Amino acid sequence: MNKQPTPRTSNYLLAPNPNDERLSTPVTGIDQNGKSVDLNVITERPLTLYLNSQEVVTMMTIGDHPDLLAIGYLINQNMLKSDAAITSVDYDDELGVVIVRTPDETKFEQKLKKKVRTSGCAQGTIFGDVIDTFEDIKLSGNAKLKTSWLGALTRKINTTPSLYLEAGAIHGCVLCEEDRPLVYMEDVGRHNAVDKIAGWMAVNKADPSNKLFYTTGRLTSEMVIKTVMMGIPILVSRSGFTAWGVELARQSGLTLIGRARGERFVVLAGEGRVEFDINPSSGEQDTGKRKT
Amino acid sequence: MNKQPTPRTSNYLLAPNPNDERLSTPVTGIDQNGKSVDLNVITERPLTLYLNSQEVVTMMTIGDHPDLLAIGYLINQNMLKSDAAITSVDYDDELGVVIVRTPDETKFEQKLKKKVRTSGCAQGTIFGDVIDTFEDIKLSGNAKLKTSWLGALTRKINTTPSLYLEAGAIHGCVLCEEDRPLVYMEDVGRHNAVDKIAGWMAVNKADPSNKLFYTTGRLTSEMVIKTVMMGIPILVSRSGFTAWGVELARQSGLTLIGRARGERFVVLAGEGRVEFDINPSSGEQDTGKRKT
Repeated sequence: MNKQPTPRTSNYLLAPNPNDERLSTPVTGIDQNGKSVDLNVITERPLTLYLNSQEVVTMMTIGDHPDLLAIGYLINQNMLKSDAAITSVDYDDELGVVIVRTPDETKFEQKLKKKVRTSGCAQGTIFGDVIDTFEDIKLSGNAKLKTSWLGALTRKINTTPSLYLEAGAIHGCVLCEEDRPLVYMEDVGRHNAVDKIAGWMAVNKADPSNKLFYTTGRLTSEMVIKTVMMGIPILVSRSGFTAWGVELARQSGLTLIGRARGERFVVLAGEGRVEFDINPSSGEQDTGKRKT
Repeated sequence: MNKQPTPRTSNYLLAPNPNDERLSTPVTGIDQNGKSVDLNVITERPLTLYLNSQEVVTMMTIGDHPDLLAIGYLINQNMLKSDAAITSVDYDDELGVVIVRTPDETKFEQKLKKKVRTSGCAQGTIFGDVIDTFEDIKLSGNAKLKTSWLGALTRKINTTPSLYLEAGAIHGCVLCEEDRPLVYMEDVGRHNAVDKIAGWMAVNKADPSNKLFYTTGRLTSEMVIKTVMMGIPILVSRSGFTAWGVELARQSGLTLIGRARGERFVVLAGEGRVEFDINPSSGEQDTGKRKT
């Protein structure tokens, strides 16, 4: 029997911690034959985010890195600049509250105050603001993607110890450089994993222009917008596309790769960054299956 | 070659319409070998919901049944009772706006107005309200689930012509009775498919107490809350669980079945409704694989 090569998970700057007992819970149920079964299920808890005294949103999250999630959410929603001064991030585990404090009241708070006086929740307004900002961004830079990197990347990611392998039913996002995964975040909330990476990048002043973003989720408009807001030129998913996601990727110059399983994929935008270095006939097959 | 039996899709009260050209878009890209590929991708568009003059939320949706989505969202968020009087539902396709009008201002509007004056978006408040209402609901009734129904159900659902089969990257939800799928909704938005079914049930005054709800999505707290708010006693998914989803299901008396693939499944709550009528040794295997 051949031993599989051990993935170089030690190269991660930040990787999942499936041994953290707060992140999953053992439960007992029964199977289709009426037999008792034990399994681990993902923890999920509400987290309410404040920007100074302004309540922003209640998110459902596994609960790790609430500080990075909070900062990343505000940046990706265009409520905070990625280089904005932050006085403190206070997290209360018992209340499920995280408060990001800035030296001065932010433009977002002023705007939201004005807006809620007239018509309420202002989610449409925020949405409109994000789209306006998005439309000004054109991703450039000399980032590239060799097709040989993709198979290597997905193999490394899929064999990294994770809550996904431990308990399933969770989304994963990975910040990568060439064929190396750097930061791997997981979350039950659809976009929280992305936001935690955005928070990590802001806190660590990471250069986005030579990075690749890998996600297990679908390539929707929201996923494309978040990646572009983060300044990352290449977005890869094992899942499929939406039409608006493709349109926004083409507008902003994002390289959009979906249905990535092993060496196979489809690129629907920004194909100029892709370097085809695999001989078609030698392309190995790896279905890259994941439980959902 | 054996011909597969044709599923009785004609029994649906409402089924997906994959031939509706507005719901998917043909795009051209390239594959891993640099060859041109044509595929269909799901349409996704913003829809801003108003309750009377109150802006509530902007959702990303494929855009079919905006009226049912609007009504179902309000009901599942506890902003409207399922038997509330509705004067009209106006939909503007060009603006992407849907307005649900009631004869009088609703309690939700009064509450939100008061709340936003003090601290803004009030999502946490709404969330708290939903949880309070949820905690008062105990599902009872004599609904049951024979294990032999599950395999039949998933086979019928998986072979129903759908946007999922046409273009992938979409969630599906199906309202069922015994082993019969009745209403099958799809949407790119995580919970829109559920809300459209809630809207359909309200408009058609459907009895929830003998129904089963099938979803392709994970069994998160939000999915459990929506099913319980709809009064449906059995929730089935091909995907996995979250810990809070399991806890809420146990509290409310919901039968919660996950990892349902063919005849196989795990039940983590409300197992009293399950009738084991398959001989374990004869249980056929059907992996029920779906693209994601």
